[in-house]
Amino acid sequence: MKLALLGCGLLGGSLAAAWRKSGRVTSVSAYDIVPAQAQRAVALGIVDRASSAVADAVRDADCIVLATPVGSMAALLAELARDAPEKAIITDVGSTKVELISAARALLGDAFARFVPAHPIAGGAMPGIENASADLFQGCWVITTPQEQTRADAIEQIEANWVACGASVERMSAQEHDRIFAAVSHLPHLLAFALVQLVASQPDGARKLRYAGAGFRDFTRIAASDPAMWRDIALANREALSAELAQFRGLLEWLQAAVDSGDAQALERLFEEASRVRRTQSFGADGGNHDV
Amino acid sequence: MKLALLGCGLLGGSLAAAWRKSGRVTSVSAYDIVPAQAQRAVALGIVDRASSAVADAVRDADCIVLATPVGSMAALLAELARDAPEKAIITDVGSTKVELISAARALLGDAFARFVPAHPIAGGAMPGIENASADLFQGCWVITTPQEQTRADAIEQIEANWVACGASVERMSAQEHDRIFAAVSHLPHLLAFALVQLVASQPDGARKLRYAGAGFRDFTRIAASDPAMWRDIALANREALSAELAQFRGLLEWLQAAVDSGDAQALERLFEEASRVRRTQSFGADGGNHDV
Repeated sequence: MKLALLGCGLLGGSLAAAWRKSGRVTSVSAYDIVPAQAQRAVALGIVDRASSAVADAVRDADCIVLATPVGSMAALLAELARDAPEKAIITDVGSTKVELISAARALLGDAFARFVPAHPIAGGAMPGIENASADLFQGCWVITTPQEQTRADAIEQIEANWVACGASVERMSAQEHDRIFAAVSHLPHLLAFALVQLVASQPDGARKLRYAGAGFRDFTRIAASDPAMWRDIALANREALSAELAQFRGLLEWLQAAVDSGDAQALERLFEEASRVRRTQSFGADGGNHDV
Repeated sequence: MKLALLGCGLLGGSLAAAWRKSGRVTSVSAYDIVPAQAQRAVALGIVDRASSAVADAVRDADCIVLATPVGSMAALLAELARDAPEKAIITDVGSTKVELISAARALLGDAFARFVPAHPIAGGAMPGIENASADLFQGCWVITTPQEQTRADAIEQIEANWVACGASVERMSAQEHDRIFAAVSHLPHLLAFALVQLVASQPDGARKLRYAGAGFRDFTRIAASDPAMWRDIALANREALSAELAQFRGLLEWLQAAVDSGDAQALERLFEEASRVRRTQSFGADGGNHDV
């Protein structure tokens, strides 16, 4: 199939490379709001043709992928309602689903039946198409959240693309998706950003950071993530994220009381339960390269 | 020098192996509250002689190292006040300093002048002497927090031991030490334990954890740490930890308001500042194996 890629970052670039490597995609056109990014994708051999307009990028496409930060997707959907070929399946790689689907429903008209919402659970600390890899999705989960109106053949084609590049596909409701990732991805990102900001903003912050070790390094790795992308995610999934954050704050209130009163038993019980869970936990569909 | 090791875990075992490898330690006797642990240290070739009593382990020692969880150190100090040879320097590897020094001051009597409080910033996710390594401290920080009464020759000998195995030594006050590590180590551990416990205890917790990716994996790696050790640290450093936790909770309250009101600018500003700091941050004295 002919692919049109809208957004030339790590995920979009890796998707184009992976789908092409699997043989299911034969040509790739691309648009990016920063034209040099799409040209860079061509220079890297990931994209065949860079377009400076969405309408031009999607002309003749069999499949259109939204791979920008989620906050930019609604504007693209409005353009696709007008310019996407009638045959084209539309999909995305966004980390939040409920709000995007609601925008797609409002904007896409008839084309909404050809929109297959998807979220590959893959990525890494280093953003940018320079770090794209055709093997990024090997062993990863890809969540799809099709709606009642979504055409079965469209779902099957997108899921087959993902399976062909080594991912494990799971369908679930958009609501469940957003709840799950609020807890295991969006909240931890928020906490990591918050801790780094807190320490850095303290009068002795630079001195404290000087002695930070591997624990701090790993805990805060995700705080190096792209700020605009995570601003969009926090806002797009605000309801589920807010609920998880409120629960977490309740637990911290309890922990503060336990620390302040020196309640050794309460602390040990919580640490033991967490340590047991964490030690027995494996990550990802089958141990691949997982993130976001 | 002849070393007596009290506590045969990852840190104690690595210390014995590293100090011996550097040539500064010629023999090692060891005690552990679990006698099989000390025997295991002998079987691994890290320790020459396992003792079932502290008094026996420290007989003839030139240097005695406390390498148990910090909550068990006061009881050992009381025994050392009675049984440590007059020549022996006493030191430790504990992650908190103020409370331990106060206990040592109260319990050690004259021997307090020979007590050199120290904290090697090294470790890893896998506890246990089976994972001990003579190279664990290569490129790590070791913080010493000597007191006015601490004998200069005792400080110098301990610091020389650490330098000889590739560590970088820094002296600071015990108060500053505890403030720094409350922020960059103890608080992140608390948060990681709390997040894992929160998600695991939710009705759909197991399903959520099924989809956790690399971000969650790294963020929560330290939640696999030893619960008893971290209970002790949280209690021993309760004042500094409580202050950091309270500040962090204040920041989360602000973040909750920003998420709930959809304040894109405020979120992006915080994420940007954190991301900038985190990307430019290097970890450890010179890129070694750092933790705790």
